[in-house]
Amino acid sequence: MNNRLVTMARHPAQLTVSAEDFQILQMPVAEPGERELLVKTIYIGVDAGCRAMMNDDPYVVNMAVGHPFVGTQIAQVVQSNAEGFAPGDFVHTMSTWSDFSVFKPAELGPWCYKIDGDLSLAVHLAGLGFTGFTAWVGLNEIARPTQSDTVVVSAAAGAVGFAAGQLARMTGTKRVVGIAGGANKCQYVVEEGGFDACVDYKDPAFADHLKTACPEGIDVYFENVGGKVQQTVLPLMNDFGRIALCGQVAQYGDEASHGPNWFPLTLKRLKVQGFLANDHFECFAQFRGETEKWFRSGDYKSPVSIVKGLENCHEAINSLISGKNLGRQVIQVAEALPINTQRRIT
Amino acid sequence: MNNRLVTMARHPAQLTVSAEDFQILQMPVAEPGERELLVKTIYIGVDAGCRAMMNDDPYVVNMAVGHPFVGTQIAQVVQSNAEGFAPGDFVHTMSTWSDFSVFKPAELGPWCYKIDGDLSLAVHLAGLGFTGFTAWVGLNEIARPTQSDTVVVSAAAGAVGFAAGQLARMTGTKRVVGIAGGANKCQYVVEEGGFDACVDYKDPAFADHLKTACPEGIDVYFENVGGKVQQTVLPLMNDFGRIALCGQVAQYGDEASHGPNWFPLTLKRLKVQGFLANDHFECFAQFRGETEKWFRSGDYKSPVSIVKGLENCHEAINSLISGKNLGRQVIQVAEALPINTQRRIT
Repeated sequence: MNNRLVTMARHPAQLTVSAEDFQILQMPVAEPGERELLVKTIYIGVDAGCRAMMNDDPYVVNMAVGHPFVGTQIAQVVQSNAEGFAPGDFVHTMSTWSDFSVFKPAELGPWCYKIDGDLSLAVHLAGLGFTGFTAWVGLNEIARPTQSDTVVVSAAAGAVGFAAGQLARMTGTKRVVGIAGGANKCQYVVEEGGFDACVDYKDPAFADHLKTACPEGIDVYFENVGGKVQQTVLPLMNDFGRIALCGQVAQYGDEASHGPNWFPLTLKRLKVQGFLANDHFECFAQFRGETEKWFRSGDYKSPVSIVKGLENCHEAINSLISGKNLGRQVIQVAEALPINTQRRIT
Repeated sequence: MNNRLVTMARHPAQLTVSAEDFQILQMPVAEPGERELLVKTIYIGVDAGCRAMMNDDPYVVNMAVGHPFVGTQIAQVVQSNAEGFAPGDFVHTMSTWSDFSVFKPAELGPWCYKIDGDLSLAVHLAGLGFTGFTAWVGLNEIARPTQSDTVVVSAAAGAVGFAAGQLARMTGTKRVVGIAGGANKCQYVVEEGGFDACVDYKDPAFADHLKTACPEGIDVYFENVGGKVQQTVLPLMNDFGRIALCGQVAQYGDEASHGPNWFPLTLKRLKVQGFLANDHFECFAQFRGETEKWFRSGDYKSPVSIVKGLENCHEAINSLISGKNLGRQVIQVAEALPINTQRRIT
């Protein structure tokens, strides 16, 4: 069996990455030991954080040259020495970016769990997986919108943003406004995601449009991008507003870039809070229960953008950096083995 | 009776202000009407926010040219038509910067209250007044340090910072470290305020000294200054740290100046929260009870820096901007009338 492993060849020179920033090594497939699984990777979830980690910046956690990429994925069990898993089972797991992986499910804790085969596999990396959970945590544990709040979500056509806006709508907040790049994405966000409005940040009149879309100001900002979008949102924040700080994709190429002056934060009594969803795993079961119900009923959608081939991983990252993706960006590494023949709900 | 009123003559051209930025008008003394008091101003509390309000920046609440300055003060009742107040009584109030004021106590809500004459009058503008309350709110309502936390306070020799460090010590947090300008202030903060350490930000080795003073990192940062001090503190923040955002004195001359990049806030899951103490008046009685007890026992100190003469108000503001003040900066407008002859505890 051919097994490739993706490592970082060098720190990228610019925000977009190239194939030369990655080195793909040939590796033997390991034999699974006691309580271990051998799995075949089907989908790898890619997020903008993967690009941020590639910077050579000692100030933040980052990758060393030669280090393998690691992330969430959907895989299929090839050989199982672990109780509760059988060949053909689909699992959500966290592993290296490679064709095959061997690991002990028990050591992965909440990252490793069996998934039903009747839903689209990739949705378990998206709206029902970690990006959906990130949106859920940012809203329910950090920003806590009320029934009278206007919620603004940047990168609204991205995996986390699209989920965040839908979940805010589901909790009955007053108004949900997305920010996305381009008229097509904005249309998608409103028509498919049920946002009340979506504003195109590439439009020269963006600031005016955002103001018009938020006639009562902004109470909650779900922040995924930083940069100019952030600068446009901040003056519209209402007193006692909350900013759930999820990502800063517009600034990942330049960690030295500045943020906003903090004085207005004081005057408006804003709360800006960074979070990572994995600190909140105790809520994961609740999240899964709520979102799977909504997904099956069609109220909660989860688009996926697919790049095929492990060797094209740089394209998946660039898709996120440039905003080409709609919803969750994944790399399809392989087709699922033809074991599960149930109808899939996508 | 001579009555002067201080107004803003122009937006200051630089961070420090000059006498020409102020216009002092001669005004008649008004007659108190029904339920009104006529009071004589004794002390006016000045804070760095007064300077921030003088900027010509539409982004934040600010003063128009010709507008009178308004702030907290200690005054003595000259004539009373309001129930519960008699001539000679000392009151904490909120009024224009003038020799005399007329107002309805009932309309000032929690800002207007009678104070005991046996304590130093100025302490009611300081450790037992609004700057002390600001420190109390930032700690107890915003940052909430635990017994195992390291708390860092900037502008530690200023009114709010000096109170914040002492209050953090009183709540039993693990370690309290101040940041102040100059060896004398640092010594004062440790010896009089009981901080575990205080680091001089003017020392070229400031960053190293701060790191040494916080061997387990920083869990709570009580932020009063912004600028370079803030940039030095942020990399030392521990995961899940909290920043109580009280002021940004180092940046008040330049509202366009930037803040830090927000990406590390996400990775470290920091919470940055702006606050104004007047949103928390429901806690004022509790604050007064606690701090008056500590003040009388000598555990909680409240130094005051006095500039004499309403006409020297620019000097009081510059004292704060340049860090010349120790503790609360006040303008002494007049001596108290010789009615209250009790011993004063300073």
